[in-house]
Amino acid sequence: MSLVTFADVQSAAAQIASVAHRTPVITSHTLDERVGANVFLKCENLQRMGAFKFRGAYNAMSRLSEAEKSRGVITFSSGNHAQAIALSGKLLGVKTVVVMPDNAPLTKLAATRGYGAEVIQFNPAETDRKALAESLASEHGYSIIPPFDHPHVIAGQGTSALELIQDVGELDMLLTPVGGGGLLSGCALAAKGASPNCKVIGVEPTLADDATQSFRTKTLTAIPYPNTIADGTRTVSLGDITFPLILENVDDFVTVSEQAIKEAVRFAFFRLKLVMEPSGILGLAALLSGGVKPAAKVGVIISGGNIDAPTMSLILSEADASD
Amino acid sequence: MSLVTFADVQSAAAQIASVAHRTPVITSHTLDERVGANVFLKCENLQRMGAFKFRGAYNAMSRLSEAEKSRGVITFSSGNHAQAIALSGKLLGVKTVVVMPDNAPLTKLAATRGYGAEVIQFNPAETDRKALAESLASEHGYSIIPPFDHPHVIAGQGTSALELIQDVGELDMLLTPVGGGGLLSGCALAAKGASPNCKVIGVEPTLADDATQSFRTKTLTAIPYPNTIADGTRTVSLGDITFPLILENVDDFVTVSEQAIKEAVRFAFFRLKLVMEPSGILGLAALLSGGVKPAAKVGVIISGGNIDAPTMSLILSEADASD
Repeated sequence: MSLVTFADVQSAAAQIASVAHRTPVITSHTLDERVGANVFLKCENLQRMGAFKFRGAYNAMSRLSEAEKSRGVITFSSGNHAQAIALSGKLLGVKTVVVMPDNAPLTKLAATRGYGAEVIQFNPAETDRKALAESLASEHGYSIIPPFDHPHVIAGQGTSALELIQDVGELDMLLTPVGGGGLLSGCALAAKGASPNCKVIGVEPTLADDATQSFRTKTLTAIPYPNTIADGTRTVSLGDITFPLILENVDDFVTVSEQAIKEAVRFAFFRLKLVMEPSGILGLAALLSGGVKPAAKVGVIISGGNIDAPTMSLILSEADASD
Repeated sequence: MSLVTFADVQSAAAQIASVAHRTPVITSHTLDERVGANVFLKCENLQRMGAFKFRGAYNAMSRLSEAEKSRGVITFSSGNHAQAIALSGKLLGVKTVVVMPDNAPLTKLAATRGYGAEVIQFNPAETDRKALAESLASEHGYSIIPPFDHPHVIAGQGTSALELIQDVGELDMLLTPVGGGGLLSGCALAAKGASPNCKVIGVEPTLADDATQSFRTKTLTAIPYPNTIADGTRTVSLGDITFPLILENVDDFVTVSEQAIKEAVRFAFFRLKLVMEPSGILGLAALLSGGVKPAAKVGVIISGGNIDAPTMSLILSEADASD
């Protein structure tokens, strides 16, 4: 029996229904003609705080006991999960603490504090962030909600694929970005439950293909500090919970180049009029670059849209006549 | 009896239903909290070719007789209407000709040709584009579909407001950008027909407030070459058909500064993850800048998302801590 099941995803969907956006599914004639398939983009960049992470964070936090809620929640993340925890805490009246490296971007620091979290900074050269969070949790009685390796987080993330299938019907193929594997493992559970013939494919940057290697070798493989523009996939490896779920429910992996990621961000900007971050657009990049041969009816999880101005301006400035 | 009626808008909705996107209506907790109202954004930036213009162009072209269709269609525009005519011609198998100044941006030239239109360039210092189009129409038997001053174009544009009201129910207020007034006059007809208590407000850049002046003085007023970043509102004046419709059905006008327009583009980018062009975002700019006092339930037509990379990068680079 797996630690997380399709029933958990269905339960998470009910748990978050009144607070999360049921994000729109976008289609494009231009995209369909270009890739030769019917493509349905599940736009989690339009989710609250700009990424799917709100689903898992809220599902996990709202299921804590009243005693746990009264003591507070801590997490370690400098990315979208930090904002998701902060926003969930604001909505649920739970104190939140985020452990963040002292070299994290000021915009992320400000956004996390803006949602009301206490931010504790540390020097990543001297301190392990997970150990620091565990020590603080033990000292103050905080509950830890980690970024991906947690059953309620995984089940929450899977609700994005569940909604997509509910809205457009069964799929032949589902493409999902992979960082720590919370989104992919949850979406694979949802797809296998709601659309059993759907082939589920994880997409990674070629520069950060630890999950692809782990899947192919069936051995958890780590890549420290991968240098990809897709910052949300810079996780070192899959987790103890996500890895077995992925081995069980995912059909294949593909990787995409940095160039393909940037071209997809431009396509989304100029053709779809949507702001998608590099980590969020991996599935679309795989389709546009030909890295995956599409089935007839393809769902793509667009996982987030939190991109800063210099990164977007740089990507737009590289546009050429072929875009 | 007006030249265009609510029944014409309803008829246009049926005419375009199978080809136009029924664009999503986006809501945002952040936006609602900031402006103190329930705001519904009708996202015509997500329409085919990136703007509402497809609605009117297709409605007009598809109603031509078979003989007229076989001779072709001509228009004069360097903006979104040119692409809308080109795309409509491609879908309907109608030859299209677009008269465009020889200083038009290469991207717009390429996009219009990309949809299959023949582009005829002229020197705007020497030639009047409308006269040139009329001369070519007379010579070749083309039908002219102008950018806004045409009953079927106006009725088509009004379908955006009709869909919005159908999707979210009656509104207290509707904010719509104004260039030549095709969108505003069509949307005002839709609102008065489908949501009779809705206050309809046109929004213009302060630098291009010819329609506001015309409305207040009840005299058609022109502003040649207004120097606003909202290029879609650089039309010289309202038209002979749109002006009386606006006097009859629009309740008020407001204007927004260039700064307010740019701040709204940044808000859409960073908070909503949507690409909106300066001309398309005027209603949102009026709300965010406090230029209009919102009613409880406000609809906003976001009319387009066709913005080039240098303009977006410039706007993003001006972001400050208050955004």
